[in-house]
Amino acid sequence: MKKGRMIVVDGSNGAGKTTVIEAIRDHLQHVNRETVFTREPGGTPIGEKIREILLSPEAGEMADVTELMLFAAARAQHVREKIMPAVEAGKVVVSDRFDSATVSFQHYARGLPLELITTLNEIAVDGLKPDMTIILDLDPEAGLVRVGSRGDDLDRLEKEKLDFLHKARDGYLGQAKASPDNFVVIDASQSLDNVISEVLSVVDQVIEA
Amino acid sequence: MKKGRMIVVDGSNGAGKTTVIEAIRDHLQHVNRETVFTREPGGTPIGEKIREILLSPEAGEMADVTELMLFAAARAQHVREKIMPAVEAGKVVVSDRFDSATVSFQHYARGLPLELITTLNEIAVDGLKPDMTIILDLDPEAGLVRVGSRGDDLDRLEKEKLDFLHKARDGYLGQAKASPDNFVVIDASQSLDNVISEVLSVVDQVIEA
Repeated sequence: MKKGRMIVVDGSNGAGKTTVIEAIRDHLQHVNRETVFTREPGGTPIGEKIREILLSPEAGEMADVTELMLFAAARAQHVREKIMPAVEAGKVVVSDRFDSATVSFQHYARGLPLELITTLNEIAVDGLKPDMTIILDLDPEAGLVRVGSRGDDLDRLEKEKLDFLHKARDGYLGQAKASPDNFVVIDASQSLDNVISEVLSVVDQVIEA
Repeated sequence: MKKGRMIVVDGSNGAGKTTVIEAIRDHLQHVNRETVFTREPGGTPIGEKIREILLSPEAGEMADVTELMLFAAARAQHVREKIMPAVEAGKVVVSDRFDSATVSFQHYARGLPLELITTLNEIAVDGLKPDMTIILDLDPEAGLVRVGSRGDDLDRLEKEKLDFLHKARDGYLGQAKASPDNFVVIDASQSLDNVISEVLSVVDQVIEA
């Protein structure tokens, strides 16, 4: 049996996560590996219910610590019910966001203590560590323009100030700098073809390693 | 301004919490104190949504750690949005369950490490400590008979084995023994009049202290 892998695609809203993940899906269909695509918050029936609470525009009264614990609860379920069993069965798991997003948004942007986030993340992930986290890096202004041009409704987190998004970006870049073996930063301001090409090259390296 | 108080009513399912809390409500109407009645999990709009996830009979696939984190998330919101502001405004808060239930059910009954529960509880309560936790103590068999005789559907936690309920009872008694100044155990197998009389005497002592 081949060794299971976990790849996370993360980065600012509007940086192209959804399109990139579709490209990974197409790419992996031509490779002889069972794959599981998932997302956070969510990924399980219980996690998707938690996601509804987190992303509800009415959730503006939510305390920062409540938000952090809900992300951790959804992640705990995600890891135990879906990710761990798939990785242990030799599959390739590709997740739209994971723990890196919590560190960026809740610590760097919202200012919650890193120690608190680390404590909750460690309980949630139970030793699981992504083999690679791919950060799609984009200037927040450019990201918001892209999201706006898609005509989507902005969700609660997207409505936060640009300053918040700049801090979150610093968080992604800071995490990548601190863990160069487990993070790769891809410039998402390039043409989509170039972005996808760079991402698929990373994916191939990870699953062939 | 009088000093705010927090009183928790806890204990096994079927021990009479709901009836006792109604009696406290009637009693406090004759005392010149603003009171807030609340419950866990829940107590806030966000907390009630979390409660729905926790008590859903479909939640059987929930990992123990997920459950613990959802209780903690609901509690974090409850403390910050509702309990703390009321206590600081000099009100008397009466909560149907609080952190003692998590220790009994998740640690004593389900076997999760006490340190993990303490870590999450401390984050959730942010220094808030009930002035008194009133434990309505009843043999689990008797409690299940009472719940059954009410004709209610058993919720997910009530469906757990009796063995589980016995361990939870040990948890309540253990906590009360360890913190005699903050817990009082009331024998819920007595006549309802006696139970209520003992409870109201404790409530009076707490709000007059």
